[in-house]
Amino acid sequence: MLEWLKEAVLEAHLDLPKHRLVTQTWGNVSGIDREQGLVVIKPSGVPYEKLKTQDLVVMDLNGNRVEGELNPSSDTPTHLVLYRHFPQIGGIVHTHSSWATSWAQAGRGIPALGTTHADTFYGEVPCTREMTTAEIQGDYELETGHVIVEAFRDRNPEQVPGVLVHSHAPFSWGKDPRDAVRHAVILEEVAKMAYRSYMLNPLLKPMNPNLLDRHFLRKHGKNAYYGQKTEQGD
Amino acid sequence: MLEWLKEAVLEAHLDLPKHRLVTQTWGNVSGIDREQGLVVIKPSGVPYEKLKTQDLVVMDLNGNRVEGELNPSSDTPTHLVLYRHFPQIGGIVHTHSSWATSWAQAGRGIPALGTTHADTFYGEVPCTREMTTAEIQGDYELETGHVIVEAFRDRNPEQVPGVLVHSHAPFSWGKDPRDAVRHAVILEEVAKMAYRSYMLNPLLKPMNPNLLDRHFLRKHGKNAYYGQKTEQGD
Amino acid sequence: MLEWLKEAVLEAHLDLPKHRLVTQTWGNVSGIDREQGLVVIKPSGVPYEKLKTQDLVVMDLNGNRVEGELNPSSDTPTHLVLYRHFPQIGGIVHTHSSWATSWAQAGRGIPALGTTHADTFYGEVPCTREMTTAEIQGDYELETGHVIVEAFRDRNPEQVPGVLVHSHAPFSWGKDPRDAVRHAVILEEVAKMAYRSYMLNPLLKPMNPNLLDRHFLRKHGKNAYYGQKTEQGD
Amino acid sequence: MLEWLKEAVLEAHLDLPKHRLVTQTWGNVSGIDREQGLVVIKPSGVPYEKLKTQDLVVMDLNGNRVEGELNPSSDTPTHLVLYRHFPQIGGIVHTHSSWATSWAQAGRGIPALGTTHADTFYGEVPCTREMTTAEIQGDYELETGHVIVEAFRDRNPEQVPGVLVHSHAPFSWGKDPRDAVRHAVILEEVAKMAYRSYMLNPLLKPMNPNLLDRHFLRKHGKNAYYGQKTEQGD
Repeated sequence: MLEWLKEAVLEAHLDLPKHRLVTQTWGNVSGIDREQGLVVIKPSGVPYEKLKTQDLVVMDLNGNRVEGELNPSSDTPTHLVLYRHFPQIGGIVHTHSSWATSWAQAGRGIPALGTTHADTFYGEVPCTREMTTAEIQGDYELETGHVIVEAFRDRNPEQVPGVLVHSHAPFSWGKDPRDAVRHAVILEEVAKMAYRSYMLNPLLKPMNPNLLDRHFLRKHGKNAYYGQKTEQGD
Repeated sequence: MLEWLKEAVLEAHLDLPKHRLVTQTWGNVSGIDREQGLVVIKPSGVPYEKLKTQDLVVMDLNGNRVEGELNPSSDTPTHLVLYRHFPQIGGIVHTHSSWATSWAQAGRGIPALGTTHADTFYGEVPCTREMTTAEIQGDYELETGHVIVEAFRDRNPEQVPGVLVHSHAPFSWGKDPRDAVRHAVILEEVAKMAYRSYMLNPLLKPMNPNLLDRHFLRKHGKNAYYGQKTEQGD
Repeated sequence: MLEWLKEAVLEAHLDLPKHRLVTQTWGNVSGIDREQGLVVIKPSGVPYEKLKTQDLVVMDLNGNRVEGELNPSSDTPTHLVLYRHFPQIGGIVHTHSSWATSWAQAGRGIPALGTTHADTFYGEVPCTREMTTAEIQGDYELETGHVIVEAFRDRNPEQVPGVLVHSHAPFSWGKDPRDAVRHAVILEEVAKMAYRSYMLNPLLKPMNPNLLDRHFLRKHGKNAYYGQKTEQGD
Repeated sequence: MLEWLKEAVLEAHLDLPKHRLVTQTWGNVSGIDREQGLVVIKPSGVPYEKLKTQDLVVMDLNGNRVEGELNPSSDTPTHLVLYRHFPQIGGIVHTHSSWATSWAQAGRGIPALGTTHADTFYGEVPCTREMTTAEIQGDYELETGHVIVEAFRDRNPEQVPGVLVHSHAPFSWGKDPRDAVRHAVILEEVAKMAYRSYMLNPLLKPMNPNLLDRHFLRKHGKNAYYGQKTEQGD
């Protein structure tokens, strides 16, 4: 079942090492079929180069395994929370990519400092609050999803397609698994450049909001004038 | 038309990922035929590996599309301003290369700190002033060109073949597209080393102006004594 | 003799440059056969790409060469001390990998700052105390082993499978040579991200101990629920 | 003439990009035949990938071209000064490798902070004083050699086989061109790690001199006990 989605999820996993987003097997991707309400996700502990479509696990949105013999990624409950709360998204990527993770460990969101950021993220990529001891000792992976959702109470996940989980690492998402990987790549690049900009100017303020608007809105939304009306790039 | 120039512009695009100057499709190159006053530039949103000479767009200096079915890069008005104001230049490169962009985001020009810089850039690589809200909300890409030109009011673009646009990213140029790419590579290297030198010595002053003269002038101008009288390097 | 172990040790050496953990020949791996009490280790000064299983040296735990014509690595006495004091370990890796070595040179242990660290290291990766002049001028490589053991007086080497030797470089270990290399890779990644997190937030405190527990214990120990009950990853 | 030396010098040039020590053609290597007092050096401005042994230039120690049709590297006078003053050395490498150059631009020597440094460099890698305007405007490349020699008034160039030229870049040397490249590689690695150690601990002092002695002397001099008595490594 869901072969098209399994293909997309497999391909997205193979893109993670290609873009140097993962060390070891620290990363997982999922995709959702919104009509059926079914999610395809990586099995836990299988290296990318050995992964096949038949290893992928199909889950429903309530966390029941619908197909697959392997255990799903231990991060599955986090993915499911995001699919339930962010109905616009079709794919999710979790990595420990090194620049974004460094910000997450520092407990700081990544402010919009330039047009590279503004072309994809409409404002700061937030860092969640620290999780409480009760959350950590309870249903931890589920609660991880909840603190992410909490960080988006006043944000639109379509306009800010990524987050840093405090003391942990980034999640990103998009309209499908491939788009989620693209956002993971951009988040990592933005995290790297923001780090260096802060080192050069520790008192740096976020960019002019009008410039943020201009760049985000020339690529997104009904007045976009970038690209060939069919795809994005530069 | 302009097949020779299209070949040069295509090749220059392919050099961008080779030199690790671009992530995604964040970069574009143009070249000009000064006799005809025609500019060849990248179409918007086409990935480098799919780019063919027939996709390239030919523009006149007033911004009219002369040939090509795809939309030109959204940065085209910036390129055209530079060709109009800097009559010596034959090619332009725009990237979001990570070290130079980090300086641009920090709003700092890159001072000349050593001979690597001095061999190519005759003094600081300037950062433009911040653009005004009117400029951002008006003809934004055109105004981007204007703030670059403003930063060169007292500088010679042949002697400083690059610039950082505030909160944005670098542009570089040269006698042809290939030369502009070469300057983009050097700008990135210079930005990286200047960053590290400042971290090691935050109070660092620019290099001795006599040393700057010596290095720049041994490679450029009528008394140059470097190379084989036909090309440059070391 | 011990062909299976020689194969494992050889393969582990070849993994060092693959993971960019070594420059030149700055790194060595050993493995132990606990039943026979014999250690297989790299000969001194042989480049990895020329290394063959028959070059590997077999030592007993008292430092006698049992097989092999080449001199063993000059670091052999350090390896032997660790095998004698840490009976649980089956393989040891020593490198001068650049991020971990930078912390060692700074004389600082690497605190647990996030889940990447917590998944493998149950708390700080310690830095040994400085060695005394007597230790340095005495049986130096043996004493290097002793200061490592001293740093684990109140730590479990199975739970913290690595260490930084002050003014020197890291050692890591595991249940076999391959596992020791895996820990060397993770230590390097953790060292890199901790560096950047500190730069972003110089007053950063170690992570919440409950989160450390959660991550370490979901992968290790009797209540682990990660992976497929046969291997690890994500 | 000197085919063996030309082969060695050519091979050393090809190793520079392999070790990522050069951008563009910013680097040159020379070797000397001490019996004949003749130096083989790179021609100016020829890219490495096009370089052939017949392009290499043969110079005598007084700066006369003995063989070759191309101009020698503009840095030739610097190389010749070093050969004249350091009679023990057989090969010289000059690069603008990025970490070492960053220290040179900062005007700081690289102190010995750990055993990686101590294995090759017996103490600080010095940075020359700034050159005077008279030196810069006079016979500049010759004077560059002189400030290097001045920095070694109280140092042994065999024990410290490299230097940083203020506001410029590193030179390294060795018993032959290959050895000089090896020292350039190590200098770059040492520069990178020292940078990071300082960032982690800005008040860091140089390493214990006894540890420096131990490591340098176990690899060098009459009591060396490292390797197989024929080559070096680990």
